[in-house]
Amino acid sequence: MSNIPKIVILGAGYGGILTALRLQKELNYNEADVTLVNKHDYHYFTTHLHMPAAGTDKTENARVSISKLIDEFKIDFVKSTVVQIRTQDKKVILEDGTLSYDYLVIGLGGEPETFGIPGMLEHAMNIRSINSVRLIREHIEYQFARYKREPHRTDYLTFVVGGAGFTGIEFVGELADRIPELCKQNDVDPSLVKIYNVEAAPSALPGFDPELVEYAMAVLTKKGVTFRIGTAIKECTADGVVVGDNEEIRSATVIWAAGVRGNRLIEEAGIETMRGRVKVDEFLRVPGQENIYVVGDNSLMFNPEGRPYPPTAQIAMQQGVVCAHNLVASIRNQPQKKFEFKNKGTVASLGKGEAVGLAFGKKYKGRVAAWLKKAIDIRYLYTIGGITLVVRKGKFL
Amino acid sequence: MSNIPKIVILGAGYGGILTALRLQKELNYNEADVTLVNKHDYHYFTTHLHMPAAGTDKTENARVSISKLIDEFKIDFVKSTVVQIRTQDKKVILEDGTLSYDYLVIGLGGEPETFGIPGMLEHAMNIRSINSVRLIREHIEYQFARYKREPHRTDYLTFVVGGAGFTGIEFVGELADRIPELCKQNDVDPSLVKIYNVEAAPSALPGFDPELVEYAMAVLTKKGVTFRIGTAIKECTADGVVVGDNEEIRSATVIWAAGVRGNRLIEEAGIETMRGRVKVDEFLRVPGQENIYVVGDNSLMFNPEGRPYPPTAQIAMQQGVVCAHNLVASIRNQPQKKFEFKNKGTVASLGKGEAVGLAFGKKYKGRVAAWLKKAIDIRYLYTIGGITLVVRKGKFL
Repeated sequence: MSNIPKIVILGAGYGGILTALRLQKELNYNEADVTLVNKHDYHYFTTHLHMPAAGTDKTENARVSISKLIDEFKIDFVKSTVVQIRTQDKKVILEDGTLSYDYLVIGLGGEPETFGIPGMLEHAMNIRSINSVRLIREHIEYQFARYKREPHRTDYLTFVVGGAGFTGIEFVGELADRIPELCKQNDVDPSLVKIYNVEAAPSALPGFDPELVEYAMAVLTKKGVTFRIGTAIKECTADGVVVGDNEEIRSATVIWAAGVRGNRLIEEAGIETMRGRVKVDEFLRVPGQENIYVVGDNSLMFNPEGRPYPPTAQIAMQQGVVCAHNLVASIRNQPQKKFEFKNKGTVASLGKGEAVGLAFGKKYKGRVAAWLKKAIDIRYLYTIGGITLVVRKGKFL
Repeated sequence: MSNIPKIVILGAGYGGILTALRLQKELNYNEADVTLVNKHDYHYFTTHLHMPAAGTDKTENARVSISKLIDEFKIDFVKSTVVQIRTQDKKVILEDGTLSYDYLVIGLGGEPETFGIPGMLEHAMNIRSINSVRLIREHIEYQFARYKREPHRTDYLTFVVGGAGFTGIEFVGELADRIPELCKQNDVDPSLVKIYNVEAAPSALPGFDPELVEYAMAVLTKKGVTFRIGTAIKECTADGVVVGDNEEIRSATVIWAAGVRGNRLIEEAGIETMRGRVKVDEFLRVPGQENIYVVGDNSLMFNPEGRPYPPTAQIAMQQGVVCAHNLVASIRNQPQKKFEFKNKGTVASLGKGEAVGLAFGKKYKGRVAAWLKKAIDIRYLYTIGGITLVVRKGKFL
């Protein structure tokens, strides 16, 4: 048995994989044992999932094998599901084993936050993982085939997306693009298909630039999306949703894209959370537990105006880099570095050739914004997998 | 208004389309008004449906626009669904209109015969039309996606095909071929997938050459099909089937490929039937109603040994040719021709590169039989659509 410190990273999402990759680079030989634990043997691009969900791209293009990203001579990889985190014993219980740690990085995926809307957890699907977007895609295709056998069931051709944030908006853009193809393949009149995007907040893309929001809504409305903004979903049932003033939208397909909360394992471990997210210290640590770092969806941080940063890929990646730095610093008894989010811009795709974005202090629309989105995605591939990964996956973006 | 006789053909399946094409060729200008009525604006290749059903070929390759087959200067085409046949008024009531006729050709599609098995009509799917095979294909793909989200539901990966006649055998062959691809796309272990082919008769392909049956079962067993021969399905439920001695096979996908009966519109018209099929006279007419011909699935004829001919594409096509001849003869007051079935051979495909067949008094197996099947399909394309259709669709067979 060695005396070198053990670092366990839970989750190979944006935060976890960046932490692993940076540790791999910064740690000296035998300075620490690093183990990455992930439910699947692949990392996936959450920012790309709206495409395979709508069927406008293959699932395969939204993921990459973890073995292609990490150097398995330097980092151990365990494919397993975390069952419990035992902070007092410094142990992580897996479905099929136990790992002990000196330092823990929690980069587990968040969970859908349904704000207590009855039936939402049971009846709606989520754009959250490779498996969940496969289900959405196959479910949608299945509804077209079912409709041809039961033409009175127009609810098979009605699609409700709850939430007009980035995920909801990007998904309806892709879905609207896919509809003509699905209609053609199934001999369905496109005018029968309805896509509703329902948002409780008074605006789509809440908090985003109003001019770009207006542009985005105009583009999507033209593509056939019906917006119901400032309209709360009251209930989700097997038959559809009830919105606003008890209006029923009958639909066999409800996608919930409105909220993310932290992973339940964290509160079950006795760590204090707000909606499952940990209000980490400025070094990304759990307050009072200096050997546990939290990155990504489970980490709660506030901007200078005191508003929480939304959980995005961008912030998770930046956290991963700082987390790795601070882990190395801890091991070397060097000072921790403060995390400061640098907003490098935000782009929302609106389907083929259309997007809206804010970057470098400027607004972008249309084709230019779509290219910007592509550039960001390619930059990410380069960051995690170098030019090889750009060549393998970049052409599909 | 003209005095020339009106011929109405119901259904553009093998029998109806052959009748139409031959009338188009044999009738002189203004000798008769011919109207072809069909539910869809396309003709489809029933003998090819097992492929799009399993997803080993596109739906598009199993159909052709009726407008590409018939000469609309010579034959009227009405896309509509027949609601009622009124023989006393010589009228056909359509969903959206009425047609009167002097001569009627009933070439409507048959219906699944479930032999009163409880739940079969409600819970099983059928390989009977473009729409029904689209449903099967999408349903199967959906089950793989569902399984990944609910891995305890092994019934999502269990497929039950009722009937090991030609349709059932050809379908399980294709499905077994498709499984590896579906497993790969969905990260599913292929050993978890089960395909059951259940047949009540004491043999698969009842009535076919025993040596070829044995070969077919060996090929399909090797591909992963589990046969339950001499085993009746007692009940079909939302959870699967109950077979033999109250054994339950849990399955989310049951395909009923075991029986065909005649179209219910015929018995509703007051015409005498056996399982919905009309025991036609030797000229293909309804006994006692010399102006009504029945071809295809609804026509019941007996071989010299007194056994009914099974409803196949081959017999329907031959009936179409004789039916057209007899219609022309009736109009010209010439004698009717007797229908005699000439068996030109039978080939059952067993998936990619494998088949069994009887033709020219010989037995064929393996790749040669698969080529024979292809040759038969190409010959059919040539018969109905000439070389143009062979070029357009033939490459996909």
